[in-house]
Amino acid sequence: MKIGIFGTGVVGATLGSKLVSLGHEVKMGSRTANNEKAVAWAKGAGAKASQGTFADAASFGELIFHCTLGFGAVEALQAAGAGPLKGKVVIDTTNPLDFSKGFPPTLFAGNTDSLGEQLQAAFPETKIVKALNTVSAEVMVNPGKVNGGDHDLFVCGNDAAAKATVGEFLKTQFGWKTIHDLGDISMARGTETYLALWVRLYGAQKTPLFNIKVVR
Amino acid sequence: MKIGIFGTGVVGATLGSKLVSLGHEVKMGSRTANNEKAVAWAKGAGAKASQGTFADAASFGELIFHCTLGFGAVEALQAAGAGPLKGKVVIDTTNPLDFSKGFPPTLFAGNTDSLGEQLQAAFPETKIVKALNTVSAEVMVNPGKVNGGDHDLFVCGNDAAAKATVGEFLKTQFGWKTIHDLGDISMARGTETYLALWVRLYGAQKTPLFNIKVVR
Repeated sequence: MKIGIFGTGVVGATLGSKLVSLGHEVKMGSRTANNEKAVAWAKGAGAKASQGTFADAASFGELIFHCTLGFGAVEALQAAGAGPLKGKVVIDTTNPLDFSKGFPPTLFAGNTDSLGEQLQAAFPETKIVKALNTVSAEVMVNPGKVNGGDHDLFVCGNDAAAKATVGEFLKTQFGWKTIHDLGDISMARGTETYLALWVRLYGAQKTPLFNIKVVR
Repeated sequence: MKIGIFGTGVVGATLGSKLVSLGHEVKMGSRTANNEKAVAWAKGAGAKASQGTFADAASFGELIFHCTLGFGAVEALQAAGAGPLKGKVVIDTTNPLDFSKGFPPTLFAGNTDSLGEQLQAAFPETKIVKALNTVSAEVMVNPGKVNGGDHDLFVCGNDAAAKATVGEFLKTQFGWKTIHDLGDISMARGTETYLALWVRLYGAQKTPLFNIKVVR
């Protein structure tokens, strides 16, 4: 499959490399066509990896992973433009984290709004599916590294078919087992706000290789 | 043990009744000495149950469970007064939930402040331990009803001895098995903010009998 990645940080690079290793063609997009980190990533990840602008990655991808910092999330989609994103499924992994006052970060959205909703409102013809934002990059692509894969992921979004596509992709490609569909994109308030607990669990556990499991 | 309960709602009544059933003497406190709900609860819960003002419950209890609505949390301790609360351990189960716009509620604290911190700042000579606020009342006192008791609780607070006392109490009296000490009372921002996810999980699970387990 052809996949676009938005963002050149740890999340984008980890997802991109895993997807290439699974045989997908991956284009990493950023503000400029030849971002240093994207060029280095593409060189390291092999023949099926390339880089370009956000618009290039959006046009290229049949599926998009959105992995920028929270503060740049809406701006990145704006840079890509509504045209290349029209009708496409965007897996939104972003979180509204504000590290300006140090660790643990505060949240600049999540209570009465969320990044997922902001993206969906700005791009009504794109199918935003919030997912993967509740775990670290390594856990996103290797859920089996934590508790034998027995832990949970949450998805939400307005388009049922898009959520089903994303769920199937995460299960077959990365090995996720339990995915809770929480509802429409406004449910992103729950999963984005959960980061306030995640960062503190991270502090207490002293490893990003953990997750939660919902039990009854 | 003599225990004070602040609040006459489901949480206060559930905790109070369980504690009486375990042989403790429990006084339920509220704004007035003869609050209707508190009188009814005390009558139903038996000879070891009584009711009174917040100040009465504070003076009575060797240990206090704080179970009012979030909006009234600081006010309830103020009504009790610093004197009767001096040196005492208060288990703060409150959450900053605002239901004024319906369900799911928003949070009126938690991001850059928390109810736990507000209580501790207002009553520096009282030992506030945030705990139990991440599960429903029935799960608080019957963790075994969920996944055979295999799920997690979080505590935080500034006083290590108080946290140890609370942890021991919750394990021996209610049967909690895994309790994560997240750190000082500012960590309440994490567990209070988690409620934004909890209420959505509640909506999706359609039962309050659930919890999360941290896995690695």
